[in-house]
Amino acid sequence: MRHFFLKTLPKAHKYVKSQQSGVLENNWAKAYSTSSEPKEPIVRTKTIPGPKSIELKNQLEAVQSTGTVQFFADYEKSTGNYICDVDGNILLDVYTQISSVPLGYNHPRLVNVFKDERNLKSLINRPALGVFPGKEWPEKLNSVLKNVAPKGLNKITTMMCGSCSNENAFKSIFIWYQNKIRGQNVSFTEQEINSCMINLPPGAPKLSILSFKGAFHGRTLGALSTTHSKYIHKIDVPSFDWPIATFPQYKYPLEENVAENKKEDAKCLAEVQELIEQYSKKNIPVAGVIVEPIQSEGGDNEASPEFFQGLQKICKKNGAALLIDEVQTGGGGTGKMWCHEHFNLESPPDVVTFSKKMQLGGYFHNEDFIPNQSYRIFNTWMGDPGKVILLEEIIKVIQEEKLLENVQTAGAVLKNGLLSLEKEFPIVSATRGRGTFLALNCTNTKVRDSIVAQLKQNGVQTGGCGDISIRFRPALIFKEYHANIVLDRFRKVLKSL
Amino acid sequence: MRHFFLKTLPKAHKYVKSQQSGVLENNWAKAYSTSSEPKEPIVRTKTIPGPKSIELKNQLEAVQSTGTVQFFADYEKSTGNYICDVDGNILLDVYTQISSVPLGYNHPRLVNVFKDERNLKSLINRPALGVFPGKEWPEKLNSVLKNVAPKGLNKITTMMCGSCSNENAFKSIFIWYQNKIRGQNVSFTEQEINSCMINLPPGAPKLSILSFKGAFHGRTLGALSTTHSKYIHKIDVPSFDWPIATFPQYKYPLEENVAENKKEDAKCLAEVQELIEQYSKKNIPVAGVIVEPIQSEGGDNEASPEFFQGLQKICKKNGAALLIDEVQTGGGGTGKMWCHEHFNLESPPDVVTFSKKMQLGGYFHNEDFIPNQSYRIFNTWMGDPGKVILLEEIIKVIQEEKLLENVQTAGAVLKNGLLSLEKEFPIVSATRGRGTFLALNCTNTKVRDSIVAQLKQNGVQTGGCGDISIRFRPALIFKEYHANIVLDRFRKVLKSL
Repeated sequence: MRHFFLKTLPKAHKYVKSQQSGVLENNWAKAYSTSSEPKEPIVRTKTIPGPKSIELKNQLEAVQSTGTVQFFADYEKSTGNYICDVDGNILLDVYTQISSVPLGYNHPRLVNVFKDERNLKSLINRPALGVFPGKEWPEKLNSVLKNVAPKGLNKITTMMCGSCSNENAFKSIFIWYQNKIRGQNVSFTEQEINSCMINLPPGAPKLSILSFKGAFHGRTLGALSTTHSKYIHKIDVPSFDWPIATFPQYKYPLEENVAENKKEDAKCLAEVQELIEQYSKKNIPVAGVIVEPIQSEGGDNEASPEFFQGLQKICKKNGAALLIDEVQTGGGGTGKMWCHEHFNLESPPDVVTFSKKMQLGGYFHNEDFIPNQSYRIFNTWMGDPGKVILLEEIIKVIQEEKLLENVQTAGAVLKNGLLSLEKEFPIVSATRGRGTFLALNCTNTKVRDSIVAQLKQNGVQTGGCGDISIRFRPALIFKEYHANIVLDRFRKVLKSL
Repeated sequence: MRHFFLKTLPKAHKYVKSQQSGVLENNWAKAYSTSSEPKEPIVRTKTIPGPKSIELKNQLEAVQSTGTVQFFADYEKSTGNYICDVDGNILLDVYTQISSVPLGYNHPRLVNVFKDERNLKSLINRPALGVFPGKEWPEKLNSVLKNVAPKGLNKITTMMCGSCSNENAFKSIFIWYQNKIRGQNVSFTEQEINSCMINLPPGAPKLSILSFKGAFHGRTLGALSTTHSKYIHKIDVPSFDWPIATFPQYKYPLEENVAENKKEDAKCLAEVQELIEQYSKKNIPVAGVIVEPIQSEGGDNEASPEFFQGLQKICKKNGAALLIDEVQTGGGGTGKMWCHEHFNLESPPDVVTFSKKMQLGGYFHNEDFIPNQSYRIFNTWMGDPGKVILLEEIIKVIQEEKLLENVQTAGAVLKNGLLSLEKEFPIVSATRGRGTFLALNCTNTKVRDSIVAQLKQNGVQTGGCGDISIRFRPALIFKEYHANIVLDRFRKVLKSL
């Protein structure tokens, strides 16, 4: 590993020199991911976005809407946990492109990936993977994706983004469900074949996917029918009439509200069963249930392992597939590769979707969810080998540097610090989450937005979620000392309010 | 340009030497894309897939379904218009990964793109483009995508694949349509806000997108509701009840069937108007119409400029948006950057979607289709700057090497040759298309499949489409002499039947 560090040393050098007292790492091999980082965030403009970002925003406005743009980044200068903007601000990034950057910016191992000619050629000769895969594809799927597959799910379908992954997982579930009814080797009827071509049953059957209030599973029309986090994502867009159950809403701190939260689990599970029966009577049977291990966009709403165990039981009882959407929770942020591994499910879920930190989309599943005919789950690209090559290196680094353990250690520091802050400042509460995948609540939306803005102005980039929550989504290379910087700045902001 | 060629000379050399008589190019600058090609296809195994492909297929089968895999390619060895497989077969590729490879394999200009450190860093630091775009993003959108935008469509929304592009274009259309009804600056009602969260009208309104029989617009649930090319794509998947009109089915040769085909246009257009009225009465009004300039998956069904002009008039009259899906036709294969530029529409279409040859998905549109609130058209990645960097170089090469003109020249040779073949062999007919985006029909599916298989066994990789058609989708660097190779082999196959 050392040679990678040496290669990047010249660029890293100026920072290393100026931060000798700040960076406490003494293990070169472990430190190289963060060794080029500044000692702490540097905020140079009175407001972010600064003048150069605003100028670029005006330029971009000529071509597309910029209402969501926070600032323009300088990705050449960004490094490790720090994102630089075009105005010279250097922010400690605990939001990481909506939780999609596993190893921080310009990780030396990733900088080197495409200097390998074979990798470069995989990148520029993008195949239709379903038809003409490259010679290395079977081995890559095995050594990269299967290497980190959730236990018991040894089949992999690759896609490109979270929405497409969920959409195609839905299709796999519908096909599986209809096969159960029809019989695995029974042919389609003429009526099914003809009616599906004009979007009508029985060929295009009325089936549903049950989802939860507060859930986010993507924004294409199928995925959006299971998304219920914010109205602005959904309004004016036609939707399927699919059942929506209540996700547990816990009282915090958890240890003081055990009995009440247990009741909440039971109530929500009963509603799931009820809705399955109701939609069966409505002739829109539930073929599958989709759930996030932690509802992310919807406000970092967590549910207990017992809730997920109960949900799996209900799915099995009713012949519905259980799809766990790990698009945001997957890839290590919770201290395990997959958040649902925290739940001690009695058997694997049926389908697990991924994207974001995994670089490309896709889903793990068992053999039952491979359609029994070709071209049913298919598209031109079926993923992207160029992203799998990046993921290969990312997973190597995660394993070699024991980054899941690092997440647990750094996460404990951050979580304990947030718990202390909420004791000191009642304006924040309900600290929750696993690993560094953490959140807390503010008294209202206005306070939340103001804290997020002031944190940024103090050098810490976080993100909001739900109506009143702040979420933390650092990279896996986020260390204890970064947690301490976040906590210091957070305390300063809370004191100033 | 010359230096790129020199850099790749060592590898190209062995081929150049053995093909001096075969390659007739005398202009180095123009020839470098194809100078490393073999003189002609080489087929080394009795059947394709050969033994090594079959071995890899067995390996892959352990992880995913392989029913659609034709062979495993060696992308390191593939070059220009030639794709190499793991068994040493070298096929002239006129299918190009389902029409998604603009400059052939290992184009020297693309090999060099990521040797530029700035480009490499853009690639490995993938941003959430809607929130933290890189400093070069406004300029890239302008110099790359706006540079090739269809006339009159100067707004760009980037996505990742064709399905997502169509899905998000649908959403833009629904939002635009509801804004027209509601009034641009009128707030949402409480009822709209609450009902959309549970997938019900009026917030999730019953609106539709009209599509055509035989169309292909993608496979996610919204896009799939407008896809009607093959039942296996749709069966067992729930669908929206949206109107489906008949696409013109012409008699060939066109010049001998002018009056009849004109009647066909009129009949199909009348049906569109009828369906719009019918779905309005059904309270599922048509917000937009989606159409391919040439129905590709559905069988390379073309329609006249007059049909598209009439369709646009109907859309305007009924207040529906016209979405032209150029996912397969766009990017130069028809001899123009966008196929609809052949149609002399009286004003630009409202939305044009792209993907495939463009490396990333997205859509061009006018200002009316930018939602008036943030986060309505949004997702984590919103495209991929790494793909735009490739596209930038691709567009430079297209323009510098006048590849659209090359497509016209090579396409004329191929089309005329196919027309001659159909005169000689009545088993094929109805040669059609624009540029090198060509197809013909066979007497039935079995004959078609057999010809495609034998063409491959004779060194030419084509693809089927519809029930009885063969499609040609060469790269933009496909030259006259490649067309002659295809025609020679095709003749040989037809003679052998």
